[in-house]
Amino acid sequence: MNIIEQLQWRYATKKFDDEKMLPQEKLNTLIEAFNLTATSYGLQPLKLVVVKDKKLQKELTKHSWNQQQVADASHVLVFCIENTIGEEYISKHFDNVQTIRNTSEEILNPFKKQLIDSFKNKPNEEISSWATKQAYLAMGNLLTVCAIEKIDACPMEGFIPEKYNEILNLTELGLSSVLVLPVGYRAKDDMFSDFKKVRRSIKDTVITI
Amino acid sequence: MNIIEQLQWRYATKKFDDEKMLPQEKLNTLIEAFNLTATSYGLQPLKLVVVKDKKLQKELTKHSWNQQQVADASHVLVFCIENTIGEEYISKHFDNVQTIRNTSEEILNPFKKQLIDSFKNKPNEEISSWATKQAYLAMGNLLTVCAIEKIDACPMEGFIPEKYNEILNLTELGLSSVLVLPVGYRAKDDMFSDFKKVRRSIKDTVITI
Repeated sequence: MNIIEQLQWRYATKKFDDEKMLPQEKLNTLIEAFNLTATSYGLQPLKLVVVKDKKLQKELTKHSWNQQQVADASHVLVFCIENTIGEEYISKHFDNVQTIRNTSEEILNPFKKQLIDSFKNKPNEEISSWATKQAYLAMGNLLTVCAIEKIDACPMEGFIPEKYNEILNLTELGLSSVLVLPVGYRAKDDMFSDFKKVRRSIKDTVITI
Repeated sequence: MNIIEQLQWRYATKKFDDEKMLPQEKLNTLIEAFNLTATSYGLQPLKLVVVKDKKLQKELTKHSWNQQQVADASHVLVFCIENTIGEEYISKHFDNVQTIRNTSEEILNPFKKQLIDSFKNKPNEEISSWATKQAYLAMGNLLTVCAIEKIDACPMEGFIPEKYNEILNLTELGLSSVLVLPVGYRAKDDMFSDFKKVRRSIKDTVITI
């Protein structure tokens, strides 16, 4: 596998084949890859909501600038941030480190205290902006994993988060939607799949010092 | 290649082998992959600054919470956002679309006008926050590409952007640094490479509807 060829193969799919479903095995790869994303302090302030329900997808399409990919895709992945990253959440993370790595409290406690104090002093907006960036990181990871696995996808910022939160009961779950990724397989007649990729030339985007 | 095994292989490298350099071919793969990252509206409001200069790396380390990875890594990738995304920048993008895809002005112009108008009305802070998110997406892509290519890396938010901007003359180039990624090869004695990966369990991070 040549990763550059795979990245050139991918494109923001404009029309999905609405009858071709992603096998569960492929979906599991995306889920595991999502969970393996690197995140700031390892805190994973994210959840992935996997929607596979045509009626729901149709409803969500109305709140996604009517982009039909949401209705037609095999699955719609909704990247959410956790609304409350405070002492309880951070303590749980350190419990997890202790359990998995068997690291002593003596080693973990100073860092744990420092992290809790630092988050205590941050305004909510700053925390949610920080968490949102981690969601973009996870999306960047998944787009590449999709390319490798020959899964088609269309990354989307264009949707109404409040409506998604309402329809998927996200607020009750302590979550806010920040990104949407319909995944599945391109329709044979998606003319965009043949379009040449538009990129700035590398001499305009990379500087070597 | 199994992508999940590769993602499990990667970790935030704490100690690089300072004598093992990344071959140019590997660096080129990272550069090409960076340039192929999907970005919002395809605008690529980003530049990658590749630093390979031990003296500079040592200087940057001081402004990276003294994290030695910046000094020891084979190369330090600095993800930057473009400071000015306005009419000129957006027009250039559409010129590029026209050249590469041979799309007619009639088709492009309405979308071009809409995008220029929309950016004109956004406060600078909003534009830079939007661009920063695209940098995280690019970082998410590159971390996965590193994992596939068996390149070690350490994603970093912990550095002083103002100092990086100054030392690398980024402001003069119309850029602001937002993320840092030292890349290269792990030192044999980096004990972190043997640590078990800490992740929340999938039942806590994924919801299927």
